[in-house]
Amino acid sequence: MRFHKVLVANRGEIAVRIIRALRELGIESVAIFSEADREAMHTELADEAICIGPAKSLDSYANPVAILSAAIVTGVDAIHPGYGFLSERYDFVEMCQQVGITFIGPSCEVMRLMGNKYNARQTMIEAGVPVTPGSKELIYSVKNGKELADQIGYPVMIKAADGGGGKGMRRVDQADDFERLFEQAQNETQSIYGNQDIYIEKVIDAAKHIEVQLLADHYGNVIHLGERDCSLQRKHQKVIEIAPALSVGEDIRYQICQAAVKAAQTIGYRNAGTIEFLLDQAGNFYFMEMNTRLQVEHPISEMITGIDIVKEQIKIAADQKLAYQQEDIKFSGVSIEARLNAENPFTHFQPSSGQIKALNLPSGGLGLRVETGIYAPSYLSPFYDSMIAKIIVHQQTEEQAWALLNRALTEFVIEGVETNVDLLEALAQDPQVQRGEFHTQWLENDFLEQWLADLKKGD
Amino acid sequence: MRFHKVLVANRGEIAVRIIRALRELGIESVAIFSEADREAMHTELADEAICIGPAKSLDSYANPVAILSAAIVTGVDAIHPGYGFLSERYDFVEMCQQVGITFIGPSCEVMRLMGNKYNARQTMIEAGVPVTPGSKELIYSVKNGKELADQIGYPVMIKAADGGGGKGMRRVDQADDFERLFEQAQNETQSIYGNQDIYIEKVIDAAKHIEVQLLADHYGNVIHLGERDCSLQRKHQKVIEIAPALSVGEDIRYQICQAAVKAAQTIGYRNAGTIEFLLDQAGNFYFMEMNTRLQVEHPISEMITGIDIVKEQIKIAADQKLAYQQEDIKFSGVSIEARLNAENPFTHFQPSSGQIKALNLPSGGLGLRVETGIYAPSYLSPFYDSMIAKIIVHQQTEEQAWALLNRALTEFVIEGVETNVDLLEALAQDPQVQRGEFHTQWLENDFLEQWLADLKKGD
Repeated sequence: MRFHKVLVANRGEIAVRIIRALRELGIESVAIFSEADREAMHTELADEAICIGPAKSLDSYANPVAILSAAIVTGVDAIHPGYGFLSERYDFVEMCQQVGITFIGPSCEVMRLMGNKYNARQTMIEAGVPVTPGSKELIYSVKNGKELADQIGYPVMIKAADGGGGKGMRRVDQADDFERLFEQAQNETQSIYGNQDIYIEKVIDAAKHIEVQLLADHYGNVIHLGERDCSLQRKHQKVIEIAPALSVGEDIRYQICQAAVKAAQTIGYRNAGTIEFLLDQAGNFYFMEMNTRLQVEHPISEMITGIDIVKEQIKIAADQKLAYQQEDIKFSGVSIEARLNAENPFTHFQPSSGQIKALNLPSGGLGLRVETGIYAPSYLSPFYDSMIAKIIVHQQTEEQAWALLNRALTEFVIEGVETNVDLLEALAQDPQVQRGEFHTQWLENDFLEQWLADLKKGD
Repeated sequence: MRFHKVLVANRGEIAVRIIRALRELGIESVAIFSEADREAMHTELADEAICIGPAKSLDSYANPVAILSAAIVTGVDAIHPGYGFLSERYDFVEMCQQVGITFIGPSCEVMRLMGNKYNARQTMIEAGVPVTPGSKELIYSVKNGKELADQIGYPVMIKAADGGGGKGMRRVDQADDFERLFEQAQNETQSIYGNQDIYIEKVIDAAKHIEVQLLADHYGNVIHLGERDCSLQRKHQKVIEIAPALSVGEDIRYQICQAAVKAAQTIGYRNAGTIEFLLDQAGNFYFMEMNTRLQVEHPISEMITGIDIVKEQIKIAADQKLAYQQEDIKFSGVSIEARLNAENPFTHFQPSSGQIKALNLPSGGLGLRVETGIYAPSYLSPFYDSMIAKIIVHQQTEEQAWALLNRALTEFVIEGVETNVDLLEALAQDPQVQRGEFHTQWLENDFLEQWLADLKKGD
């Protein structure tokens, strides 16, 4: 099968990225846009563009009915959801199925299974993939919960099975606090999800966030494109990502990638996908969650393998067999991505919006790639994600990759909105960052305060 | 040795490219600029910039004394000449040597040797590198010339030993014309070069221009980065280049690359360099000339090898050993470069200049690279080379590479000057081009007229 026309159900850099991939594949593209995005780059670049509602996401990019209507009107074969918005809404996948439009992603059932954190965990246990020590079943009583927590040792995390984004979640550092926090979590879970499905996991502190990029087709073929170190985070948002994860040894790399492939095979996954793991300082790794969609940081895996993940997603959705086996994937060099956000570090990283008066994006040279959906002059809307550009570098060694990233960041100029470019530069120049010596709390707990203090002193 | 500060004796995209490479290596850069280039990108981007004269090239970028003065004033360790301007002026290399500044290039003697076409030819014969059938010595009499021409067969080319750019050159298609054309060439050579040093070569018609990229250090190490097919030319200017040369089989690829390495070894070459060959339809190849400098199309060899040729030049000039042996060079995929020129196809490709009001350069996706020295708004000066940008793509297969080039070209928008973008698109979409079925005269003789006629009809 081959698609002739695909609707891109997203905006910003990822919509632009997908439209370009479609064009390279000779497939027509349909952009959707909100009233705020009439002149956005993705609107301009696609073969067709259709307005699907007001600026507010819930009324446009996250509105399944509006998007499906646009898809039917424009006569597309398939919808690419990108990331965010409807990309993990299994009800949307079902709706697409009902009207005979291919959703470029996994099946509704698999998305639903992996979307429930408890079920995902149970599935991984059955598949033999290591999970964090914790619940073997859902816990409905304080007594059972306390017993388990005492047994696995504090700190523990109480989590809602249906949870996400910290909702229904409580960290318990000592036994005395357990009862109170369990009841809070239970009430919150009841009020948000309409059930009391709760489970408990041990907290893995000072761990690295290591994730494995997968490609899986309809014929049971699953390959990995290596792993990424995404431990440089602020408020659970990744800031800089690196592939391969340089502080991971060959042994663990092999095990973690094999575990990810096994996980995908077990659930009959198809599409690009990512398994996220926590890696503790002793070298143990634990399944965290699966992202059943394209990720923001997918380009760094593309750079080290030469495989275009977006094109592969599209081919897989069109029932094509993967053209690669694992042994065909050759890894080369080091790739780093830095996320440029329109936000103000001095006001707690509050998103910044406004008229972009001038813009100079880094370019040229060997191994530099920039993904963006903005241009100048244009208006940067306050309605959406503050990420405005991704600076991606690829070099033979990590030292060269950091040098190229630094060169690129010095060329970035924007007038009209605030950005985190100074933070990215400080990180890219930091010896500890360059040595890979950080875990998921390091940026926020160890780096940020000092950096902000130094900056203020400098003012 | 390590340079601390380098002067970039050039302008436009190549100056920008070199400044970026220096920054990635942690070396300070000094830009030079003419009065017309006060706000040029290379002027803005370098760590320092110094005005070296009026707009006219001979008074600025091609003025050895002005540039050497700037180098002395700014205290640089070395000068990178880029391509064009002073990059093949051996007298400038000598001047640099006299003031103790490293010229990033070959020695004065080697540049001089290879700059004389007859001496270069003789050197190649001694090295056992195939040359076009023709003179074994310089020819001063019509009689000797005619005998040789009759012997090797028409058409032949009469060339001035010191010649370049068609000066002192005559093509003879039949014996009857020989005497007249020989005398013309002799007179022209006398008046331009002050000698009558002339030689004769057989004309190789319908041949491909295949060139081999070399890197050679001060320690006798010479490696090649594969070959390029640069046969798509108009008026001896390359338009689109491809690496590897897809219609060349493995056997000839091996032989031609080995011949190039041998040539460089024989003359004790150091620096990046290129040996250009003609490849006839029977698979015979002949030495054409050596470019003892960086070439415009160097990025496509970088893309398929991952080696940064500009950085290697700089390291070699600083007496560092090549960090690679031939077996370390891994070739991957296909790379194509398209040269965007400010010129008007409808008025015989007359250069176009003026205010650039708007500019959109293609970007994003896997394997796209753009090298340029222009931005908007700015004034495109009529004083210099009309090449304003290079669109470079890298993909796993040639089919994918052409698709990406086409996607990129559709994104290019410029307002204020005329360009050859439509010609590039027509070439990139042409099935014959995509199959590699062209020789050095094909674009001009077989393609261009029809394309122009179709365009005019379409108007």
